Amino acid sequence: MVYKYSLNTAKENMYDITNKVKEAITISGAKCGIATIYTPHTTSGITINENADPDVVHDLLLGLEKAFPNRAEFKHDEGNSSAHLKASAIGSSVAVIIDDNKPILGTWQSVFFCEFDGPRTRTFYINISAN
Amino acid sequence: MVYKYSLNTAKENMYDITNKVKEAITISGAKCGIATIYTPHTTSGITINENADPDVVHDLLLGLEKAFPNRAEFKHDEGNSSAHLKASAIGSSVAVIIDDNKPILGTWQSVFFCEFDGPRTRTFYINISAN
Amino acid sequence: MVYKYSLNTAKENMYDITNKVKEAITISGAKCGIATIYTPHTTSGITINENADPDVVHDLLLGLEKAFPNRAEFKHDEGNSSAHLKASAIGSSVAVIIDDNKPILGTWQSVFFCEFDGPRTRTFYINISAN
Repeated sequence: MVYKYSLNTAKENMYDITNKVKEAITISGAKCGIATIYTPHTTSGITINENADPDVVHDLLLGLEKAFPNRAEFKHDEGNSSAHLKASAIGSSVAVIIDDNKPILGTWQSVFFCEFDGPRTRTFYINISAN
Repeated sequence: MVYKYSLNTAKENMYDITNKVKEAITISGAKCGIATIYTPHTTSGITINENADPDVVHDLLLGLEKAFPNRAEFKHDEGNSSAHLKASAIGSSVAVIIDDNKPILGTWQSVFFCEFDGPRTRTFYINISAN
Repeated sequence: MVYKYSLNTAKENMYDITNKVKEAITISGAKCGIATIYTPHTTSGITINENADPDVVHDLLLGLEKAFPNRAEFKHDEGNSSAHLKASAIGSSVAVIIDDNKPILGTWQSVFFCEFDGPRTRTFYINISAN
């Protein structure tokens, strides 16, 4: 049970994909289990954070840029090592627990696809494991 | 098989919840599989690190604060964007492999609930998936 | 279905272990599911990033060192708190989705064992969960 989605991204942004997670869980019929949301790209990530105030996304992207800027000492000649660093710090997947055919998400939580080196057409996958 | 726990936190600290992970695995009866430990809060995280010397927790919290401090340019008016950044860098869940009805943890490993914006009453969930 | 592997590491480096992930998936026979790759050590991590240009690994290690250096204020007397920080920022495991008995990995993605405090003989585990 693997579901594939795609989206078009801007240079750097975070996209709320919670509705796709809910959709995959509904289609799967899983009562209890784990949803794994995964990006196959090395300059993007998947994270869970606040969906209520869009300023949180602004601050997350700014704070990551301050922690992991491009540096003169970097050698990768594509010039996007900052994006590779953010990808590994954020991670390529998240797990969400499924209960009663719904994701257990806190009041303020959404699942975000994080673009660190767009604009691009990106793909992500959702696996549903019932248990 | 989802187990729910709660704890009361200080302003910023890490709490060893390994006993709860072991408890959930025991109750589940799973011989082999995955335990997923998950926080539904956007200013907390779950991580695995050293449990032997409490100075490691001190240094982890200090090092995260240095990497992801609050900044004048941040816009989120709750003023806790540093905590949101730490939450996404650490992550909202960890997976632990179950073998012989026990978690595979290294000698020095414990599972920690990380509070970045307390004090609060917090919840976490453990899902056990047998395979 | 847990598979155990070991490797000998240098002081600080990232090792492509994708072949072991593919091997474990093949042996398991799982058509669809999740591979969980896990390190039981508190100064190492598992991540997914680019395998094509070795300069990416150079830049990842350099960027992590800049974000999480050892600091005079650290108290842990082993002197390796920087490595503990990198371990928690990168994470102790990754999940890879299995489809058609193969991992869904992007063109440039590999799974890496990250050594932050070697040289050592290290272990990692792979659990295969079919669904």
